[in-house]
Amino acid sequence: MTKPLLGFIFLCVTACVSQAPVNSQTEASPTQSSIVKRFTLVAQHTTLTIDEGVIHKGFTFNGTSPAPLLLVNEGDNVEITVKNIDTVTHGLSIHAANTQTALKVANLPAGDTKTLTFKADVPGVYMYHCAPGGHGIMTHTMGGMFGMMVVEPKKKFALEEELGRVPDIKVYLAQHETYSNGRDFFDGKPLYVSFNGYNFRYVNEPIVARPGDYIRFYYLNVGPNLTSTFHAVGGIWNYSYPQGNPANKMMGGQSVLTGPSDSFVIDWQVPAAGPFLFVSHALGTQAAKGAVGIISAKDNAQRPSVISSVGLTLPLPTQPKRIVDPFGIGSPDIDRAVHFHAGDPVYVQMVGNSFSPKIVEIPVGTNVTWVNEDVFDVLEGERSGKHSIAVTQGAEIFASPVLLHADKFNVTLSKPGTYEYICPLHPYMKGRIKVY
Amino acid sequence: MTKPLLGFIFLCVTACVSQAPVNSQTEASPTQSSIVKRFTLVAQHTTLTIDEGVIHKGFTFNGTSPAPLLLVNEGDNVEITVKNIDTVTHGLSIHAANTQTALKVANLPAGDTKTLTFKADVPGVYMYHCAPGGHGIMTHTMGGMFGMMVVEPKKKFALEEELGRVPDIKVYLAQHETYSNGRDFFDGKPLYVSFNGYNFRYVNEPIVARPGDYIRFYYLNVGPNLTSTFHAVGGIWNYSYPQGNPANKMMGGQSVLTGPSDSFVIDWQVPAAGPFLFVSHALGTQAAKGAVGIISAKDNAQRPSVISSVGLTLPLPTQPKRIVDPFGIGSPDIDRAVHFHAGDPVYVQMVGNSFSPKIVEIPVGTNVTWVNEDVFDVLEGERSGKHSIAVTQGAEIFASPVLLHADKFNVTLSKPGTYEYICPLHPYMKGRIKVY
Amino acid sequence: MTKPLLGFIFLCVTACVSQAPVNSQTEASPTQSSIVKRFTLVAQHTTLTIDEGVIHKGFTFNGTSPAPLLLVNEGDNVEITVKNIDTVTHGLSIHAANTQTALKVANLPAGDTKTLTFKADVPGVYMYHCAPGGHGIMTHTMGGMFGMMVVEPKKKFALEEELGRVPDIKVYLAQHETYSNGRDFFDGKPLYVSFNGYNFRYVNEPIVARPGDYIRFYYLNVGPNLTSTFHAVGGIWNYSYPQGNPANKMMGGQSVLTGPSDSFVIDWQVPAAGPFLFVSHALGTQAAKGAVGIISAKDNAQRPSVISSVGLTLPLPTQPKRIVDPFGIGSPDIDRAVHFHAGDPVYVQMVGNSFSPKIVEIPVGTNVTWVNEDVFDVLEGERSGKHSIAVTQGAEIFASPVLLHADKFNVTLSKPGTYEYICPLHPYMKGRIKVY
Repeated sequence: MTKPLLGFIFLCVTACVSQAPVNSQTEASPTQSSIVKRFTLVAQHTTLTIDEGVIHKGFTFNGTSPAPLLLVNEGDNVEITVKNIDTVTHGLSIHAANTQTALKVANLPAGDTKTLTFKADVPGVYMYHCAPGGHGIMTHTMGGMFGMMVVEPKKKFALEEELGRVPDIKVYLAQHETYSNGRDFFDGKPLYVSFNGYNFRYVNEPIVARPGDYIRFYYLNVGPNLTSTFHAVGGIWNYSYPQGNPANKMMGGQSVLTGPSDSFVIDWQVPAAGPFLFVSHALGTQAAKGAVGIISAKDNAQRPSVISSVGLTLPLPTQPKRIVDPFGIGSPDIDRAVHFHAGDPVYVQMVGNSFSPKIVEIPVGTNVTWVNEDVFDVLEGERSGKHSIAVTQGAEIFASPVLLHADKFNVTLSKPGTYEYICPLHPYMKGRIKVY
Repeated sequence: MTKPLLGFIFLCVTACVSQAPVNSQTEASPTQSSIVKRFTLVAQHTTLTIDEGVIHKGFTFNGTSPAPLLLVNEGDNVEITVKNIDTVTHGLSIHAANTQTALKVANLPAGDTKTLTFKADVPGVYMYHCAPGGHGIMTHTMGGMFGMMVVEPKKKFALEEELGRVPDIKVYLAQHETYSNGRDFFDGKPLYVSFNGYNFRYVNEPIVARPGDYIRFYYLNVGPNLTSTFHAVGGIWNYSYPQGNPANKMMGGQSVLTGPSDSFVIDWQVPAAGPFLFVSHALGTQAAKGAVGIISAKDNAQRPSVISSVGLTLPLPTQPKRIVDPFGIGSPDIDRAVHFHAGDPVYVQMVGNSFSPKIVEIPVGTNVTWVNEDVFDVLEGERSGKHSIAVTQGAEIFASPVLLHADKFNVTLSKPGTYEYICPLHPYMKGRIKVY
Repeated sequence: MTKPLLGFIFLCVTACVSQAPVNSQTEASPTQSSIVKRFTLVAQHTTLTIDEGVIHKGFTFNGTSPAPLLLVNEGDNVEITVKNIDTVTHGLSIHAANTQTALKVANLPAGDTKTLTFKADVPGVYMYHCAPGGHGIMTHTMGGMFGMMVVEPKKKFALEEELGRVPDIKVYLAQHETYSNGRDFFDGKPLYVSFNGYNFRYVNEPIVARPGDYIRFYYLNVGPNLTSTFHAVGGIWNYSYPQGNPANKMMGGQSVLTGPSDSFVIDWQVPAAGPFLFVSHALGTQAAKGAVGIISAKDNAQRPSVISSVGLTLPLPTQPKRIVDPFGIGSPDIDRAVHFHAGDPVYVQMVGNSFSPKIVEIPVGTNVTWVNEDVFDVLEGERSGKHSIAVTQGAEIFASPVLLHADKFNVTLSKPGTYEYICPLHPYMKGRIKVY
């Protein structure tokens, strides 16, 4: 995706008409029947382009982040099959299901497939996300495994009921955060915040509408951490519905407030021609980091009826200018080496399934202490925040015992060279020591 | 409390039946009469076990954090006596009281006792917390002095009114944050986030229920900083009531959004057997740090009718692996010494009634600058963010004048050795300098 | 403004009667007519006193922050003229306008004047702020360019409709954050959080009321980042209205939750004589940093009918103890020099239109890498997060090419001395290198 020069968007009424591509292979295909709607979600490692020249190494369902948009009607029976083609345990938490799910689709080992059926009996805009169990729920969701499911209500929204209209454009919009390491994940400091998988996606490719159109936003704040206020510049909502349930109607308003896993249905009539920004109004922590888009309204424009929340599958750059790898080691400007000098105490945390700092440079003879800051230390493997370290390459090969929360391990490194190490319980967790 | 292996919880329908102990000595005992319900709150220093091998040095009412659960009915007269058996000024802010409270129970010097009476005339789920006045309100609440008070409504909730049911289990659930220093308190970066006083308390000891039970959550977000989205995995709320007031009914929803001091009453019918996690869906900043529990549903299980929000009083470990001391000096892995080298500018902040960094190591002849980052610098003593420093032990004994906000004090240290110092206005504030 | 000793406020019923000054020159003067209400907003650089001895260098409309309070009635025609007397591009986003605004009043070059007209047809409490376009929206709002506009409803609030009362005091209260640099802006870590432009403004000068008075808060959370829970100590709200719209009524409650750009109308009857604190109940991140005020109630007191949200225009201190300059270089205790030693990797970020760190001290021969962490890199000039560096003074004069997001520039500095540099695209962005 190339970035067009955008100055003209603000200066002319003639709107861009190109539309962000939707990769149909990433759409789940429900099989409509009187009995059941079926979806398949495939858990896997995936590397995605999330800004120009910027790639992210994480986990996905079906190769995109956000994952497939699951659309059903209130009262539908739903069958979701989760296939794990990855090398680690995955699972599913699906907020639209009011039933026991943990026993059915959590804790899905590598190679396994499980199926959940449920009746979608409460309308709303819901999050779903990976849920291997325990600690892995947090880290896998952070790693990119999330999507939107909408249960359309039987009861009508006010737009249909009172105004006799239907939405001209349905915009399924998921806001989500990207982290470059587990420490920032624990601190709530994302590197990026995006709508539908790419920074400023709908600035690059505005959503085309006509003046007078009713846009229905199905807005989901995926988080996993921050609270958002969704707002349109030049817009006051007509109606908004917390959690997307028509029983909870609010009138007017410049913004809707959502925490992670909260959602809204918003109906808004585009009041005029021209560009309308939509943003998370948390300007520094969110909007400036990617959470801005544009509605571009023009008389008689060709416009889409649906904008899908599914993320993009763009070609990977051959020479990425930035690699974001929350668990492993990314680009040196974001995963900076910390250079220690004689006398400095050297601690490395295990936190959010990453090491912090990921790279340390230390003088010969320095004692290094690892401390496990992950708190959820029950269960095993992917489902636990237990950690250990094992040097896989270096002048000396050593390993720690398994560390529970707040346990420490320390070693004095007396041979120069570069040491690569992992957590054997989460082998994608990578660290490096340079002994100088 | 030992941590059982929890894998089986996710794998079997047979639920754990052991229940987290409730220390009845920490329960306030209201004296029911036609006139008044009486409670006594005792302000004191307390050290508590908050995770396995992890202890916290702070303040409490009645020796637990959360403090006693205060239950009254709408229209009751309430009498609360606050006794201060500590060495510093304390007080009380009680959100259920719509009356002048500051003149009655704030600013309670060491050794004093004061009483507040009020009529509980607005139903809801309320926070109470220490309120000596001014700056001390913030730091004492952060230090552990908070609890829940519920005013049960005369008007019925929909569960009773429309469905003709009553809750089978009342779960009084307080979410609260633990800080290891005042800098993190100002930055909103808690070390832990817990339900009812202990990390993953109800993962270790799940709450037992039966399928079909209605659970009423009295959910209070104590904060003191973060916004939470409370969610049950596999659950959609039947009804939720912002602030716990039956006049504010919402339908459905996967999560409820609360800031610090916000609350909800939530009614939810357990839809099936098996384990249901409940979490703050802020996954990195909260859930991964302790804010997860389990409802374990089994047919015909013996289950409690009430889960109290009162914190645990567990034995202190003889060899704690971690000491959290927000104002003094805790374990070296969380209150790390910062080692300075020749040429480094050395600043120490006073912030949130702690020094930051708490321990500095500096070469002989280094100039150290203290700067007061606490902003509320009116009032006196515990009620103020004025600070000074006084060396209590070391090669040279010195002291600063009293510093208002943004005031600075600096000194050059020319004698090697270890210097221990305090803020004489808040003598539990401790710092250390090692001159090498 | 001098700070009175405030101890007595908590100890006596006799309230302070002095009132915070309102500078009438900073009030916009609507010209009432049957046709239109007119306001003029003047964009400019301004330095303001925001705490005793503390000054802030930023941007304003009309020389105050918050900017003029704009009051209209539902159905009014509104005409707002924006004059840019600054040296950089500004603009306006006005949340009360449900119409195309970007084409009318965004992108206003230095020296230009533009006018927007709209019909205020949705009641509420609204934010307005600078909006040059794109990235500049975030940074200029952070820099101080924001204000409140209220559209009074035709429909009555419950106080008038059900109780037959009108508010005795209207308190227009804007909560807003102050940042000392762009890194903290991106991380959501404000230095201060204030009501109406000055830390603890209404602690210093309490708002006088009478017991039994109805206070109507027009509460606006400007942000630009944090979520607030507004609360009165000793108070339970009578009614609260999300977004200030009478159609959205809530009953009771200890606090109201708002994200940036959210608002409430709150009606509360002062229940007794004495002081009542009002706070953001996010105690560490907000209240302790300035977001506390006092209602001081006394029988028969002379009290104001209106408290304006407009910021103060106090004399600047001749010897400020702290200079907050989010884009340039402020006081050394907040914009600390980072002293690097041989071997340390040296990175300087461009972030939120500031350098981070702003001052680096490096050994001769060190390689410095600048990396652009601003993400919005389309558009040009003030409207873009593109950056470059240009040395304006130093032993060597050099400049970088224009950097898009995640682009890097590095140079090895081999001549000792002090180098001053700027971003020529945002010339108020300043950095310094000391080569030693």
